[in-house]
Amino acid sequence: MAEFETGFPSVRQLQQWTADKQTIEVKVVTGDTITGSILWQDVHCLCLTESSGQQIVIWRQAIAYHRALATS
Amino acid sequence: MAEFETGFPSVRQLQQWTADKQTIEVKVVTGDTITGSILWQDVHCLCLTESSGQQIVIWRQAIAYHRALATS
Amino acid sequence: MAEFETGFPSVRQLQQWTADKQTIEVKVVTGDTITGSILWQDVHCLCLTESSGQQIVIWRQAIAYHRALATS
Amino acid sequence: MAEFETGFPSVRQLQQWTADKQTIEVKVVTGDTITGSILWQDVHCLCLTESSGQQIVIWRQAIAYHRALATS
Amino acid sequence: MAEFETGFPSVRQLQQWTADKQTIEVKVVTGDTITGSILWQDVHCLCLTESSGQQIVIWRQAIAYHRALATS
Amino acid sequence: MAEFETGFPSVRQLQQWTADKQTIEVKVVTGDTITGSILWQDVHCLCLTESSGQQIVIWRQAIAYHRALATS
Repeated sequence: MAEFETGFPSVRQLQQWTADKQTIEVKVVTGDTITGSILWQDVHCLCLTESSGQQIVIWRQAIAYHRALATS
Repeated sequence: MAEFETGFPSVRQLQQWTADKQTIEVKVVTGDTITGSILWQDVHCLCLTESSGQQIVIWRQAIAYHRALATS
Repeated sequence: MAEFETGFPSVRQLQQWTADKQTIEVKVVTGDTITGSILWQDVHCLCLTESSGQQIVIWRQAIAYHRALATS
Repeated sequence: MAEFETGFPSVRQLQQWTADKQTIEVKVVTGDTITGSILWQDVHCLCLTESSGQQIVIWRQAIAYHRALATS
Repeated sequence: MAEFETGFPSVRQLQQWTADKQTIEVKVVTGDTITGSILWQDVHCLCLTESSGQQIVIWRQAIAYHRALATS
Repeated sequence: MAEFETGFPSVRQLQQWTADKQTIEVKVVTGDTITGSILWQDVHCLCLTESSGQQIVIWRQAIAYHRALATS
């Protein structure tokens, strides 16, 4: 599973944000934008907790881009 | 078939939901949202039983995101 | 060609449906829905015979979901 | 290059159609339908000669489905 | 990097067109059509020089089809 | 991680542009155009700093094409 090694900045950054309960915004290929804090990631998916408290599992294969949202 | 090992949270969670007959909602790249309980999963697909009783086989390659629906 | 082994439920089900001349409905990523009975499948494609008798070769890479249609 | 072996029905059928100068119709993920006879195929692409005589190189990765057109 | 070997007609043709400063038209999955002469190709991308003189780097993964344009 | 070797022109060019704080424009498969200077790249992603100072992480899998913008 070399591609998921934590040596990669992109994987490490998501791990750091998971620890920090950072809210992120993820744009997926369907055009939907999903917002939440990262609960876990694995080789297939990224699980976010939305502000409603509901969890949503986003498939990596479908992600176009993401960014951290400013904490307010 | 390393990528389908049950050690991954995303695979394990879907297995648990299969056992629990949990209803999930799956958004696919065509923009369709499919709702049902998971009957089986394999390396290619996820088979759901829709509320109509009909089965639908969703290809993993086409999934953007999914979530458990609250039981009511 | 491990990924096409008949041990996978999704591959086996399509094989069974081929033997049964089961009519299926396939939704592909272009948004088209294709209906027909399965003539053959291989690692790349699924060949259906449409009700017009014409054959259509669907590429697996483009499939979002499929289901068996009720026989009437 | 196992996946391009001519033992697969889908590859063999395209080879046969190339030999037969069969006109085919290819639907690609952009929604375009391309029509022509197959000039060559390789592991990446399918080259068609359109009725205008112009050649077009279609990338396999972008194909949703194809079919032979009836000769008239 | 077997898949980028120059033994493949599709790779060789693009190489020949690079040498010939052939203008090509590339349709990508976003629906955009990009026109220019090929400056270089590698395993990931195809770099074109547009008629404005500007360079554009197209990712192979996003190409649906391409063709040579007639020289006028 | 052979595919990310810096021997490839496309990878090397992005590295050079990172060093030069070159502003680039990236078109992704959702149809969005993202503009910024490259902060880092890894095997999965490209991180840009937008003119607002905000960072955005673009997934390689979602890139259709990119180009350098003229410095003004």
